[in-house]
Amino acid sequence: MAKGPLLIIGGGEDKGEDSEILRRFVHLASSGGREARVGVVTTASSQGEAMFVAYARAFQRIGLNRVEALSVHHRSSAQDEAICRRLEGMSGVFFGGGDQLRITSMLGGSRFHQTLLNLNLEGLVVAGTSAGASMMSLVMIVEGDARQSPTKNTVKMATGMGLWTGAVIDQHFSQRGRIGRLLSAVAQNPDILGVGLDENTAIEVRLQEGHLQVWGQATVTIVDGRQIEETNASESEDNQPLALTGVILHVLPRGFGMDLNTRRPYSMGDTL
Amino acid sequence: MAKGPLLIIGGGEDKGEDSEILRRFVHLASSGGREARVGVVTTASSQGEAMFVAYARAFQRIGLNRVEALSVHHRSSAQDEAICRRLEGMSGVFFGGGDQLRITSMLGGSRFHQTLLNLNLEGLVVAGTSAGASMMSLVMIVEGDARQSPTKNTVKMATGMGLWTGAVIDQHFSQRGRIGRLLSAVAQNPDILGVGLDENTAIEVRLQEGHLQVWGQATVTIVDGRQIEETNASESEDNQPLALTGVILHVLPRGFGMDLNTRRPYSMGDTL
Repeated sequence: MAKGPLLIIGGGEDKGEDSEILRRFVHLASSGGREARVGVVTTASSQGEAMFVAYARAFQRIGLNRVEALSVHHRSSAQDEAICRRLEGMSGVFFGGGDQLRITSMLGGSRFHQTLLNLNLEGLVVAGTSAGASMMSLVMIVEGDARQSPTKNTVKMATGMGLWTGAVIDQHFSQRGRIGRLLSAVAQNPDILGVGLDENTAIEVRLQEGHLQVWGQATVTIVDGRQIEETNASESEDNQPLALTGVILHVLPRGFGMDLNTRRPYSMGDTL
Repeated sequence: MAKGPLLIIGGGEDKGEDSEILRRFVHLASSGGREARVGVVTTASSQGEAMFVAYARAFQRIGLNRVEALSVHHRSSAQDEAICRRLEGMSGVFFGGGDQLRITSMLGGSRFHQTLLNLNLEGLVVAGTSAGASMMSLVMIVEGDARQSPTKNTVKMATGMGLWTGAVIDQHFSQRGRIGRLLSAVAQNPDILGVGLDENTAIEVRLQEGHLQVWGQATVTIVDGRQIEETNASESEDNQPLALTGVILHVLPRGFGMDLNTRRPYSMGDTL
């Protein structure tokens, strides 16, 4: 089977009647005629139960009844064989928001983590919002001063869950003024693609096919650093302002996609 | 004589012992061995007198004693012959912060405005901070939601004072999360160079020589839209998210400059 799509959401997704992004997730999780069966992982949150109830209601509102909580709030439960077997029964997994370090520190390297990666390689749809979006990449933004001039120190990184190794993801992007910390992250190694997701906005990433597509209300900011000509990222002291020249930036709303191999965005209208 | 340099400051410039940017202004205004004589225009502020006192003190602290208030708070005084003659005696003019529409609506098209433009063409140094920075360009950002996804509606434009016709300038840039409104402004006509100035950071613009140079503490964000491949700026409804592909972005700290003809940034170290 092919690697399953990732649906990466910038937080604050609509959970009402419209629910475009949640509907897209359910659509993906029920492709091939199967009935969607969705697990909600609330590990990032300290109020996991309330979060699960909210998502279960939102999914039921759009016609999905097979929703289960995958409650993993300790490393011991992440090693549990039973929860991995439950994961195997899902067609889609949804990671809620909170603190991305809770996800990685509780799940990272566990049986649950390995099962998730394996199942995704075989077609499992994995969605995540806010902290659940950040954890998708291998190098993960943990925190960083927003609304600051970019410095080396602007961003604190850690190891994410590695569902998408070629990108670094930030969320609540325009709303919290996070361009500086995304630029700092990309400057450290311009090979990585910087992705800034606004609230109620998502990308559907298909790594096997090599493209992404934008869904939702606002915009996705892509920071492509491969053409960077000059940077002081390695020389400058921590709090010195960063220098970066030749960054390529795209702002993509719904209806746009991007070829991940050439890094060229396109309007979906052009390709349909 | 050659067109005088513009010193455009993102607001919040240091007025203490260091005062790098104010010192640079005084240095420019005293070039050629003349003693600097500086006029402070507080038109943008509703507290002009207090602002003048603060700047007069700051300039005196760094050794400049010939500081005068150029108080223009009505259109009638902007038409006054006497104030224009006083302007002619200055080697530098400094525009303080406040509301850029106060500057343009009180000074725009007046004798004072025409005298300022003529004197700048003959060498007068013109500095401006915050609102005094915004007013430098011909198309001027008046307001716009910060920390919003860019839409056509994100930014409200007006006509600035036209000291630098090829740019659109935003200030308090990283601090207030204003990348979205600068991108919106550039998308409307990618010929214009977008310049986002952080606080306590300035550019010295030399239009005759065709370059700019960065001073101060943080960074200047340059948005070059000439290579934009796709945008929906003309089609999208006001509140729809903007699409923009192929923007080139530079983040420049002190020690960097940019060739305004080729739009290529460079490290000053490379050229010295």
